Amino acid sequence: MKRFSSWLQTVAFALVCGFAFAADPMLVVGHKNPDTDAIVSAIAVAHLKTQMGVTAVPIAQGQPTPETKYVLERFQLTAPPVQTTVAGRQVFLVDHSDYPQAPDDLTKAEIVGMVDHHKLGGLTTDKPIEAWVFPVGCSGTIIARMYAVADVPIPQSIAGGMLSAILSDTLMFKSPTTTPEDRTTAAKLAMLAGVDDIQALGMKIFEAKSQFKGISAMGLLKQDFKAFNMSGRKVGVAQLEMMDLGMVSPMKNDLRKAMGELKADGYHSVLLMLTDIMKEGTELHALSDDAGIVETALGAKLQSGSVWLPGVVSRKKQVIPGLEKAFK
Amino acid sequence: MKRFSSWLQTVAFALVCGFAFAADPMLVVGHKNPDTDAIVSAIAVAHLKTQMGVTAVPIAQGQPTPETKYVLERFQLTAPPVQTTVAGRQVFLVDHSDYPQAPDDLTKAEIVGMVDHHKLGGLTTDKPIEAWVFPVGCSGTIIARMYAVADVPIPQSIAGGMLSAILSDTLMFKSPTTTPEDRTTAAKLAMLAGVDDIQALGMKIFEAKSQFKGISAMGLLKQDFKAFNMSGRKVGVAQLEMMDLGMVSPMKNDLRKAMGELKADGYHSVLLMLTDIMKEGTELHALSDDAGIVETALGAKLQSGSVWLPGVVSRKKQVIPGLEKAFK
Repeated sequence: MKRFSSWLQTVAFALVCGFAFAADPMLVVGHKNPDTDAIVSAIAVAHLKTQMGVTAVPIAQGQPTPETKYVLERFQLTAPPVQTTVAGRQVFLVDHSDYPQAPDDLTKAEIVGMVDHHKLGGLTTDKPIEAWVFPVGCSGTIIARMYAVADVPIPQSIAGGMLSAILSDTLMFKSPTTTPEDRTTAAKLAMLAGVDDIQALGMKIFEAKSQFKGISAMGLLKQDFKAFNMSGRKVGVAQLEMMDLGMVSPMKNDLRKAMGELKADGYHSVLLMLTDIMKEGTELHALSDDAGIVETALGAKLQSGSVWLPGVVSRKKQVIPGLEKAFK
Repeated sequence: MKRFSSWLQTVAFALVCGFAFAADPMLVVGHKNPDTDAIVSAIAVAHLKTQMGVTAVPIAQGQPTPETKYVLERFQLTAPPVQTTVAGRQVFLVDHSDYPQAPDDLTKAEIVGMVDHHKLGGLTTDKPIEAWVFPVGCSGTIIARMYAVADVPIPQSIAGGMLSAILSDTLMFKSPTTTPEDRTTAAKLAMLAGVDDIQALGMKIFEAKSQFKGISAMGLLKQDFKAFNMSGRKVGVAQLEMMDLGMVSPMKNDLRKAMGELKADGYHSVLLMLTDIMKEGTELHALSDDAGIVETALGAKLQSGSVWLPGVVSRKKQVIPGLEKAFK
């Protein structure tokens, strides 16, 4: 009798676990320090999957930035709940494809898919998954393709969010990451979203992006901070995009101090890109155990730890590849 | 004058290197021990890329198997040249997404894209790439999608090759890896290729697959052998698919001896799947430092080192995931 009851308990436990797993919706999550693309892409993929019969919910690894808040309000979208653990769940990654930027317990979850437009980050899975990875300017552009392949209409609000993500990621099509598909997709999304003036929306987004008041230097530094493992060395690259570098002038000393605090956390190098969208260039600040490597990567000399890089606006395309190479 | 001439040499050298790199066509390559999907996919993607304006050529990491030879002859396709080095070249991977199955010097090449339908294998890149990875039964199915997105017509001969790859990979739609898209794609490719009877083509392919005469036991073992790194342990899984297990009966002792020789090359476990396509099951043979792990993975007891697994026909879907889990 005891054996039977223990067997019954086991079966009941297995059933509960099984049902819990099956009933738990798939989680769709963007990278740490989420930007507009990470947040909106999670919302857009969760909606698409749910429409296709797989219940999915968006989550975020952090609060929306002022820019993202503006976009969510403008298009009446709800910020995904902040959740940083995914163990035991089915997970769909958006806007990243590497472990450092994913939830820390990702290895205890089941990756079922990903959308990304960055360099491949070395994820492994036990089973085949779906990966939509293309060298375009924004995950939103790829997700528009996914909706088209699945023949699912993009709701007006989500189209507005995806359009905003494209404008933000491509710096209003000025970034060298921009492809013709980003432009045509943005035009289609604008029609769906009822946006007549794409340029005007872009300016509003970049005004929101440039609102640094009331945020601490460390908060700014971490707002769009990405950590990389480069040949065994920990390298962090933050980026702040703004309409005018003057907006951040009073904070530069505090920002450099914050870089130092961050670097103490085992970093070989911490870089900060202060990108002027209008002048189309970046004032790059660096703290490094070996400034020579950074200078080789940039092809430029640092003076008092910083240098103006005309034409450089893309971390992914104009800064990271050089760093990867210099660190090899 | 000396300085000028050395500068001139440097410029000339840079120009030669630059032009050489630009003029070298992109290489499209399938996995080691290429099967029909690996060979045909390389041909199909190279054609597509060339049509899209990027000159590309297919290569292979080995000679075609008897099955692939039959397919190439039937559809008047040319076997890609065997080439195992890719250093300094742009490379597009087909039918795999991991370093062990890729050319050994892949890290010295530039990965620009990949097509795969297997588990993600942990590749990293310095730049964003295009990755077409979907959980379907065959890379050919994904490549048909690529042609559709690019709006490039599939030539009759290549359509025949892709159809054959789908029939081979899905065991004529009997494998659990088969998806509805594999079936509809096969039907479309059959029309393009002028194949009236898909079943008859499938039988011809599997007859060719089952031609083991004149091949050594080691040759058979390596014909479709995949090596995996499972939590630091080297695990190899070979598979032979045939119409009737009787075809391989006289060779079983030699096959087990060959497994032993192969295992001596640092393997923790070497498995051989003898898959009966008609009976839809696999006689699995195992040599392992820890047979218990293999038994846990299979959910079955080995007797004299082998076991009949009814319903098991897919290495990828029915054997590898269990092994990955058991080795964790």
